[in-house]
Amino acid sequence: MSALVIDNIGLLVTNDPERGQVRDAALVIEDGRVSAIERTGAAGDERLDAGGRCVIPGFVDSHTHLVFAGDRGDEFAARMAGAPYAAGGIRVTTEATRAASREQLRELAAARRAEALRAGITHLEIKSGYGLDVDTERRSCEVAAELTDDVTFLGAHVVPAEYEGRAGDYVDLVCGDMLAACAPHAKWIDVFCEEGAFDEEQSRRVLAAGRDAGLGLRVHGNQLGPGPGVRLAVEMGAASVDHCTYLEDADIDALAGSDTVATFLPATDFSTRQPYPDARRAIDAGVAPAIATNCNPGSSYTTSMAFCLALAVRDMHMTMEEALTAATLGGARALRRDDIGHLSPGARGDAVVLDAPSYSHLVYRPGVPLVAATIAGGSAAG
Amino acid sequence: MSALVIDNIGLLVTNDPERGQVRDAALVIEDGRVSAIERTGAAGDERLDAGGRCVIPGFVDSHTHLVFAGDRGDEFAARMAGAPYAAGGIRVTTEATRAASREQLRELAAARRAEALRAGITHLEIKSGYGLDVDTERRSCEVAAELTDDVTFLGAHVVPAEYEGRAGDYVDLVCGDMLAACAPHAKWIDVFCEEGAFDEEQSRRVLAAGRDAGLGLRVHGNQLGPGPGVRLAVEMGAASVDHCTYLEDADIDALAGSDTVATFLPATDFSTRQPYPDARRAIDAGVAPAIATNCNPGSSYTTSMAFCLALAVRDMHMTMEEALTAATLGGARALRRDDIGHLSPGARGDAVVLDAPSYSHLVYRPGVPLVAATIAGGSAAG
Repeated sequence: MSALVIDNIGLLVTNDPERGQVRDAALVIEDGRVSAIERTGAAGDERLDAGGRCVIPGFVDSHTHLVFAGDRGDEFAARMAGAPYAAGGIRVTTEATRAASREQLRELAAARRAEALRAGITHLEIKSGYGLDVDTERRSCEVAAELTDDVTFLGAHVVPAEYEGRAGDYVDLVCGDMLAACAPHAKWIDVFCEEGAFDEEQSRRVLAAGRDAGLGLRVHGNQLGPGPGVRLAVEMGAASVDHCTYLEDADIDALAGSDTVATFLPATDFSTRQPYPDARRAIDAGVAPAIATNCNPGSSYTTSMAFCLALAVRDMHMTMEEALTAATLGGARALRRDDIGHLSPGARGDAVVLDAPSYSHLVYRPGVPLVAATIAGGSAAG
Repeated sequence: MSALVIDNIGLLVTNDPERGQVRDAALVIEDGRVSAIERTGAAGDERLDAGGRCVIPGFVDSHTHLVFAGDRGDEFAARMAGAPYAAGGIRVTTEATRAASREQLRELAAARRAEALRAGITHLEIKSGYGLDVDTERRSCEVAAELTDDVTFLGAHVVPAEYEGRAGDYVDLVCGDMLAACAPHAKWIDVFCEEGAFDEEQSRRVLAAGRDAGLGLRVHGNQLGPGPGVRLAVEMGAASVDHCTYLEDADIDALAGSDTVATFLPATDFSTRQPYPDARRAIDAGVAPAIATNCNPGSSYTTSMAFCLALAVRDMHMTMEEALTAATLGGARALRRDDIGHLSPGARGDAVVLDAPSYSHLVYRPGVPLVAATIAGGSAAG
């Protein structure tokens, strides 16, 4: 049995309700799992000296689109110069992704996964959704499954160009052959329920088909305006509804009385110049929040959870504690997992040593890379 | 004569009006200076392969406060939870800085300088201003002078606690003994002309005394509200007036007809939850802009120029080209230097290899550390 001790931790954030934040601590990880939290000076086979700095649970990024090819820097520049964001931009990436080989997709996704790990993300969900045909969606799910066990089938990301005006036919494909091809490689199904993507009835069909195939449910909703996404997610018992930039009272009421997590993606609102969601109002009403990067080439090409936290605190009026919890424990809840997002004994040994005395520096020092070391499953990574 | 060739540059930004942006280029640096821009494949004693990526001039950060001791994370957290920003917070850092030894100040400042270099900042200005007594201000200028030749004496940062109610007496000290002690170590004098700091007449006295002592002039102004700072800076011929968050028509008119640069510090507006300056309006009126980090423990504890660029584009509506130019050539202009901020032959060999095909990724990928290599004076640094 091999033990790693992260010793001399000035401030350890455990996300364990019984332990909370511990000063002058040592975190002991055995065989990939947290085995104990002790006072500084604990013994182990291997010792990592945190130098009095802050250690937090690894970030859990519950919403990413890492499998894609191509660059959309030009579209981004055009948007910053005044062009509006539209869901249809997804099609640009679809062309490049269909044209890419499995090996190319694997290399690109693995490089992004490595970048995220360096940024302290020890677990992430990965969606398909840039294939939009049976073969490429399956290939995307397979590539994603090499990097995570939280793979989401997102055939219903947008209606591809060749189905223009025949959205119903495309939904038939998603719920039929495409789902059959992807379900064996996925744990979740997701649908973009938004004007310009899929309407409420189409979204309900996709989710029902996924559930029948044994997949858990996720929804993209209420990103570009008010809409039925949030209420549909709650109605169907989805684990999470993501974006939630536009929340009406009825949406908040529905979320607050449910097990559905509201996942905020503030880097997306930054990169699309949308307003930020009113997380303060949602949280005060009892909604369970998560924060994720939404790393994707169109609307949020970042792996920096720290950047997301800075926006969550500055522009969504979350406290620093709330933001950190949402990016760790909240992400785990959005994936319905209890083995990650916290550092209680038995949890996966996923932790981040910050080059700072407190996690508040993730917001206090925006843009500064503060991840000194990422520990994933008890081993140095990134 | 030793030559470094940065070869295989996919996109080279020169900031040279005759060369502009060059594709498939090699940058040749001899004895610390740019000697030529050639096609990919140039010869040199030492070769750095940019791998087809983008190379830009090193960032010129014309506004920093790197010499200080102490932490203000708690104040920051309180502000994020609703407390307003006030200039008086500077006094907290003054206590810690006075108590620090020269060696401590040197170590702290050098660590921040190293962090900035890793972030692609190849030249920076450093202000005193956390001593506010003769000995500590002199010590701060001496420590700063070990790190840069652009040292700014900022005794007039705020009225220290022991001069409460006697601002005039403190201005006498700044213009007398303190200036005499600091001028030999400084190139510039600066004053915080703002309600809560120094009024117009006090500011004018400070600037005039500095000019008489042979120092160039800089001003902090119009940060927390409209005020006389900008017009005073123009009237006195200051090289730069910094913050410019609140600009009235008369301020813009004055700047547009002057040699005074408007230096925007958007990370400060981020961290103090101020509105962002209307850079678009100022630039369209002919104002010369710079962007700087304002790295300091109270209102902007970042060394990330990339973060500043992201805010400048997203929230100040500058184009990506304008923002990059403002953070390189603009910073050099704000320091009245022509040897940095561009990569024309003869310029200092200060360049940054980005881990991206274009500088637009500095904004497209917010929060992601994209500096693959920093070259300062022709040598790998950071």
